[in-house]
Amino acid sequence: MFESAELGHKIDKADYDKQAPVLREALLEAQMDLAASCRFPVIILIGGLDGAGRGETVNLLNEWMDPRFIDTHGMGSPSDEEQARPIMWRFWRVLPPKGKIGLFLGSWYTRPILDRVSGRIKNAELAQQMNSANRLEKMLTDEGALIIKFWLHLSKQKQKKRLQLLEENPKTRWRVTERDWKHYQQYHKLIKVNESMIRQTSTAEAPWIIVEGYDTHYRNLTVGKVILDALRKRLDSTDSKATLITQAPLPLPAIDHLDILKKLDLEQHIDKPTYQEKLEKYQGKLSLITRDPRFKDITVIVVFEGNDAAGKGGAIRRIAGSLDAHRYTIIPIAAPSEEERAQPYLWRFWRHIPGRGRLTIFDRSWYGRVLVERVEGFCSQIDWMRAYSEINDFEAQLVAHNTVLVKFWLAISKDEQLKRFNERSQSGFKRFKITAEDWRNREKWDDYELAVCDMVDSTSTDIAPWTLVEANDKNFARIKILKTLCHRIAAAWD
Amino acid sequence: MFESAELGHKIDKADYDKQAPVLREALLEAQMDLAASCRFPVIILIGGLDGAGRGETVNLLNEWMDPRFIDTHGMGSPSDEEQARPIMWRFWRVLPPKGKIGLFLGSWYTRPILDRVSGRIKNAELAQQMNSANRLEKMLTDEGALIIKFWLHLSKQKQKKRLQLLEENPKTRWRVTERDWKHYQQYHKLIKVNESMIRQTSTAEAPWIIVEGYDTHYRNLTVGKVILDALRKRLDSTDSKATLITQAPLPLPAIDHLDILKKLDLEQHIDKPTYQEKLEKYQGKLSLITRDPRFKDITVIVVFEGNDAAGKGGAIRRIAGSLDAHRYTIIPIAAPSEEERAQPYLWRFWRHIPGRGRLTIFDRSWYGRVLVERVEGFCSQIDWMRAYSEINDFEAQLVAHNTVLVKFWLAISKDEQLKRFNERSQSGFKRFKITAEDWRNREKWDDYELAVCDMVDSTSTDIAPWTLVEANDKNFARIKILKTLCHRIAAAWD
Repeated sequence: MFESAELGHKIDKADYDKQAPVLREALLEAQMDLAASCRFPVIILIGGLDGAGRGETVNLLNEWMDPRFIDTHGMGSPSDEEQARPIMWRFWRVLPPKGKIGLFLGSWYTRPILDRVSGRIKNAELAQQMNSANRLEKMLTDEGALIIKFWLHLSKQKQKKRLQLLEENPKTRWRVTERDWKHYQQYHKLIKVNESMIRQTSTAEAPWIIVEGYDTHYRNLTVGKVILDALRKRLDSTDSKATLITQAPLPLPAIDHLDILKKLDLEQHIDKPTYQEKLEKYQGKLSLITRDPRFKDITVIVVFEGNDAAGKGGAIRRIAGSLDAHRYTIIPIAAPSEEERAQPYLWRFWRHIPGRGRLTIFDRSWYGRVLVERVEGFCSQIDWMRAYSEINDFEAQLVAHNTVLVKFWLAISKDEQLKRFNERSQSGFKRFKITAEDWRNREKWDDYELAVCDMVDSTSTDIAPWTLVEANDKNFARIKILKTLCHRIAAAWD
Repeated sequence: MFESAELGHKIDKADYDKQAPVLREALLEAQMDLAASCRFPVIILIGGLDGAGRGETVNLLNEWMDPRFIDTHGMGSPSDEEQARPIMWRFWRVLPPKGKIGLFLGSWYTRPILDRVSGRIKNAELAQQMNSANRLEKMLTDEGALIIKFWLHLSKQKQKKRLQLLEENPKTRWRVTERDWKHYQQYHKLIKVNESMIRQTSTAEAPWIIVEGYDTHYRNLTVGKVILDALRKRLDSTDSKATLITQAPLPLPAIDHLDILKKLDLEQHIDKPTYQEKLEKYQGKLSLITRDPRFKDITVIVVFEGNDAAGKGGAIRRIAGSLDAHRYTIIPIAAPSEEERAQPYLWRFWRHIPGRGRLTIFDRSWYGRVLVERVEGFCSQIDWMRAYSEINDFEAQLVAHNTVLVKFWLAISKDEQLKRFNERSQSGFKRFKITAEDWRNREKWDDYELAVCDMVDSTSTDIAPWTLVEANDKNFARIKILKTLCHRIAAAWD
C-alpha cells in the first residue's frame, strides 16, 4: 500500500522553482472560482507520519492560497467545551461552508489510530470507528462536499533521517518531540494500523491520496496538483449533484515520473544450470508442501497478472508441473460470458473459489476491473474507483477463511515485449498467441503502467501483498515465483 | 422501530379475495417485463421472527409468480462444500442474474443475529458484520441490483399466539420446534438485537421493510404490493444506471389504513384540578432533577415535533417554567438561514448541541428533513431516505455521550386543528400564529401522516424512542410530556 511512497521521489530546486509559481497561480484561480460559484465546500485532511511534513504542508497551503477562503484547524487535544460534547462536535463546528476550504491537521482518524497502536482499542473497535468515519464522509459527499484526504508517508529509514535533520537544525529542533521518537520505535505497528485504516476508508467518493513526505519539493507539488485537479474537475463540471459526487479526487501520475515499475531491475537473470537446479529444488518443495497434512486446512489462491507476453503461461506451467493434478485448478480469465455479464463483476471469480486443501491459479483475475476495464473505458471512473475497496473486502474474506493469497505482477520492458511479439509472429505454433488486440494494448503502455501502480498502491496489503516479478529473463521470473509461493505458504503455517 | 408492526393490522377475507388476484396478475406481468428487459437482478430477503410467516411468505410468492424466473434459497446450515469456503460464497453462488428474482429465506443477517443473541459475539463484532453487510449490499446496488429486505415482526403476545395456533393444527404442528419456543423466551433480547441490526443496515439503497406478520391476508398483500411497487418503479424508469440506484424500494402506506397515529386515543383528557395538582408535582420533580448533582454528568435534549397548532409552545413553556434559566435553552427551528444552507443539513443542529449539565429544547428539529422537506419536495427521495440512517447515526453519537434524548410527537385530530385555526384567526394576539402556510400544510394532512409514521418506524429506537402525545386536550398532553421527561432522566440514572 505504501510501495509508491517509499521510492525516494524527488524534484530538484530548479524544476520546483519553475513549477511552483504556475501551480500557485492556478490554485488561487481555482479558489476564486470556488468562492464565486459557492457550489460546494472543500474538506482537506492532512494525515501521516511524524516528520513527513504535515505541518509544513498546512503552512504551505496557507501561504499559497487566499487566507480569506481557507480555514485551518489544528485538531489537537479537545478543549473543555469540546470534551463536554460528542467527539464529532469539534469537527462539525468548524466544517467549511460552500465556497470555502477547510484544512484539517489531524482529523477523525487521529484518535482511533493512536488508540489502536497503544492497544487501548481492539481491531473490532477500530473497524467500528472506521465505519463511523465512512458514514460521516458518505453523508458529507452526499451533501455535495469535496473531501481530499492526504496521507504523508515515509519509509522507516527516511523517517529516522527526517527526524534527525529536523533535530540538527536549531530552527526546527523544537518540532521533534519525545513522542515522535516513541512513534518511530513503533514504526511497524503504526504502519500496520495505518494500512488497515486506509484499506477500510479509501472509498470511491473519498479515497486516500498517499504521498511520500521526504522531499519537500515533491511533496508540495504533488499535494498542490492533486488539490488543483480535484477542484478544477468539480468546478468545470455541470452543476448536477450526481456529477458532483462522481467527481472524486484521484491520485495523479508521479510528477517526477518515478514509479514502482520503473524502479524494478528488469535485467536480473540467472544462468541455465542454476535455473535447473533451483527449479528442481522449489518444485520439489512445493510438491512436499501440498502433501503436508497441514495443507488440508488452508486454501491457496495464486493470481497472475502482467504485461502481454510477460510469460504468465510458462510460469503457471512450472507450478502445475510440480503438483498432483488432483490438487490444483487453473482458471483462465478472458472476456466474461453472457452468463457472467448478467452478474456483479466479482461473481465470476467467487464461483471458482476452491475449498480447503486446494491450490487455484487465476491466469488474469478480478484485477481486470482496475486494469483493462479502466484503461479501455469499459467501466466508469466511479466504478473502477469503488472496485479497489470491493476487491480489498473480497480478499479480506478469503484471507479470513485461511486462504493464502499470492498475487504476482509479471513485468517486462517495452523493448522486451516488442522482441517477444515479433518472435511470436514468426514462430509457427506461437503465432496464435499474438493478436491485433495485443498490439493495441501496447499503444496504451503508459496508461496501463499508471493503472498497475494505482492497483498495487490500493490493493497491496499486509494480508494480501503483491509481488512484482522482474520478468525480462523468464528463468529468473519462474524461480522468483516458485520461491515466493513456497515461502508464503510456509509463512502461513508459522 | 416496530411500532407500526404491532398495531394488529388485518384484512378480511372478502377484501383479500378481491385484491389478491389483481395483485397476483400485476406481479406476474412485472416479472415478465423484468425477464424480457433483463436489465437488473432482484434480491428479496425474507427475515423476521419465528412464527411471523417467513416460510409461508416464500411459499406464497412461489405460488403467485412464475417459477421459471424465481429461484428460492432456504439458507439453512451450510453444507460441507460451503463450510470449506468463505461464508459469503454460499450466497454468491446463488445470486440471481439480471432478469431474475432470487428469494432468500435467511440471509447474511441470520448468523450474526443469532450469534449476538446467544452472546457468542459482542456489539462491536455485530457492528463489524453489519458493516460488511452494508458494503456487500452497496456493491450489489452499485452493480444495479434491486434489493428488497422484508422483516416480518410480531409483538410478544402475538408471537405466542401464532406459535400456539400452529401447534394446535395437526397440519402445521411440525413447523414449531423447541428452538422456536426458546427464541420466544428470549423475545426482548432478540428484539433489541433485531432493532440494532435494522438501525445499522437500513440504507437509502436497501432499506428494511417491516411488516406485521400476524394476519396472513395483511402480510401477503403488503409483501406483494411492496415488491410490485419496487419492480414497477424500476421497470418504468429510464435505463440510466444512476436512476436505477435511486429507485429503491419504499414502505407503502398500510393497506388496511391503520397506522400508529390513527390508533391513538386523542380524546384522553384530565380535569382542571387534577391538571393543576399534577403540573405542580412534575414541575417540582423536574426542578429537583436538574439540581441533582448527577445532572452535571448528563445532557438532556428534548425534541418537539407535531401537527401545526398541536400545542408545542405551551408544552415547552411548562417545562421551561419549572427550570432555572441558566440550565436550559430553547432552540426554535425555522427555515435555514443563508449560513445554514451553505452546510450539510445536520450542521444547524450540531451547532446547538449543549454541553453536560444542560437541557436543550428543540422546537422542531432535524426531523424537518423527513417531514416538511419530504412532503413539500424540498429534497429528493434518495436524500430523505438516507436521512433516516444519518439521523440514527447522529442520535447514537449523542446517546453515546451520556445524552438523554426525549422526542415528542404532539398529535391532534384534523377537526381539532380546524377548531384551533379558527380560534386563532379570530383572537387578536393569537392571529400572528396562523399563516397561509398552515392552511396549505393542512391540505397535505395524509402525506404528513404517512411521513410521521415512516419517521417513527425508522427512528424510534431503543436508545432514542419517540413518545406520541395525544394532544387534543392540552392539559393531558402537558402532563404526559412532563411525566415522560422526568421518567426518562431518572431511568438514565438507574
